[in-house]
Amino acid sequence: MKKEPSFPFPFDEYIKDAETFHGFAAPGLLVGGFMVNKAIRHFPAGVLYEALCETSKCLPDAIQLLTPCTIGNGRLRIVSLGRFALSLFNKDTGSGVRVFPDPIKLDPWLELKAWYMKLKTKHEQDLNLLFSQIKQAGEEILKQQPIQIKPEVYRKISRGPMALCPVCMETYPAATGIPCLACQGESPYVAWADICLEIKIKAKC
Amino acid sequence: MKKEPSFPFPFDEYIKDAETFHGFAAPGLLVGGFMVNKAIRHFPAGVLYEALCETSKCLPDAIQLLTPCTIGNGRLRIVSLGRFALSLFNKDTGSGVRVFPDPIKLDPWLELKAWYMKLKTKHEQDLNLLFSQIKQAGEEILKQQPIQIKPEVYRKISRGPMALCPVCMETYPAATGIPCLACQGESPYVAWADICLEIKIKAKC
Repeated sequence: MKKEPSFPFPFDEYIKDAETFHGFAAPGLLVGGFMVNKAIRHFPAGVLYEALCETSKCLPDAIQLLTPCTIGNGRLRIVSLGRFALSLFNKDTGSGVRVFPDPIKLDPWLELKAWYMKLKTKHEQDLNLLFSQIKQAGEEILKQQPIQIKPEVYRKISRGPMALCPVCMETYPAATGIPCLACQGESPYVAWADICLEIKIKAKC
Repeated sequence: MKKEPSFPFPFDEYIKDAETFHGFAAPGLLVGGFMVNKAIRHFPAGVLYEALCETSKCLPDAIQLLTPCTIGNGRLRIVSLGRFALSLFNKDTGSGVRVFPDPIKLDPWLELKAWYMKLKTKHEQDLNLLFSQIKQAGEEILKQQPIQIKPEVYRKISRGPMALCPVCMETYPAATGIPCLACQGESPYVAWADICLEIKIKAKC
C-alpha cells in the first residue's frame, strides 16, 4: 500500500493490495494502477499534488492505493462525468496531467477493448485473457494531456461555524441553513413513522 | 488494514494504519474508528453490508480502513449532509444502523467537544489532550439508531451501454446524452484556448 511510483509498475504486488483494499482485483483497478503510476511520474518529489477522478467506479481506489490522496483527507475529488480518466494536479496552482485509456490504442487488445467499451457481458468475458492483456498492454493504451483545473474546483472553502440542528439535535455546518440539510428533506433514510404506517397497512390487507 | 471488528477497539494499532492511509491520525478519523467498530458489530458474520457516510471529511477513510466498503467498489456512498454520521446497512434490504457522536454526551470531554463543535481554532487545540480524550471516551460519546435507507439510495442502477464522444473522442455512458457530460460543459478543466488567451492578454498589459 502507498507504494512509491516505479517503472516498470510492480503489477503482481499491486494485485494483492487491490484484493485486500477493494475486495477483488477488478479490471478497472488494474488499468487504474498503470494510469496512476504514469501520472504520478509527472511530479518531482516534494511537490504536493491532489487528484481528480471522473468516475466513481474502481479508479478512485487505484488513486487511494498508490497516492497520498484519499476521499477522507480531501485530496481526492470525484466529479462523476462517467469518463474513465484521472488527473493529478499541483494543489496550489491546479496545473497537472490527465491520463486516460485512448480508445484507438485499445484496438490491438480485443478482450481489453471489449471490457472497456462494455461490448461483452461479464459472463462472456475471458478473465484470464483480460488480465493478461491488461498486464501486457500496461501504459501502451494510455494517453496523457496537460490540464489546468478550474480554481472553483481545486480551491478549498471552509465550512464555517457549526450549529446544533433544532430538529435532529445533531451538529452540522450552520451555513447550510436551519434546520440541517437532512431535516430540510435531503435525508437518505425512510422515516420510522412511514415504516410503521406501511406495516399497519400491510397487516390490514 | 481491514481488521475484523473487535472489542475493545485496538486504538493504537489503528492510529498507525490511519497515518499510512490518510497521511496523519486526524481526530475525525480516530473518532470514526470507534464509530465504525460500534456499527459493524450490528451485523452477524456473513451478512453483506454497505456504508453511507453523511460527510466527506475524514469519516469515509475510517470506513474504508475498517470495512470492505470503499468508494471505488461501490459499497461506500457519500451523501454530503455535513453531519458527522455513518450508517452500515444490509445491501439487499437497506436496513441497518446509524452511529454518530451525541452532542450531549460530549459535555464531560471539553477538548473533544471544542474540536467537534469547532469552538477552537486548530492553533488553539491541545492535540495531546484531544487524542487522550478521544481514546478515553471511546464509544461512550456515541449514539446508535436503527435506520432504513431509501430504496432509491441503496439500489444500484446500471449505467447502460458506452459510447464514443464525438467531441473528446473518449468513452462515456451513452445515457448521459451527446456529447459526454464533460463536453456538455461540466468539465472541471479550464480550456487551453482560454489559458493561451489569458497569457496573450497579460503579455500585452
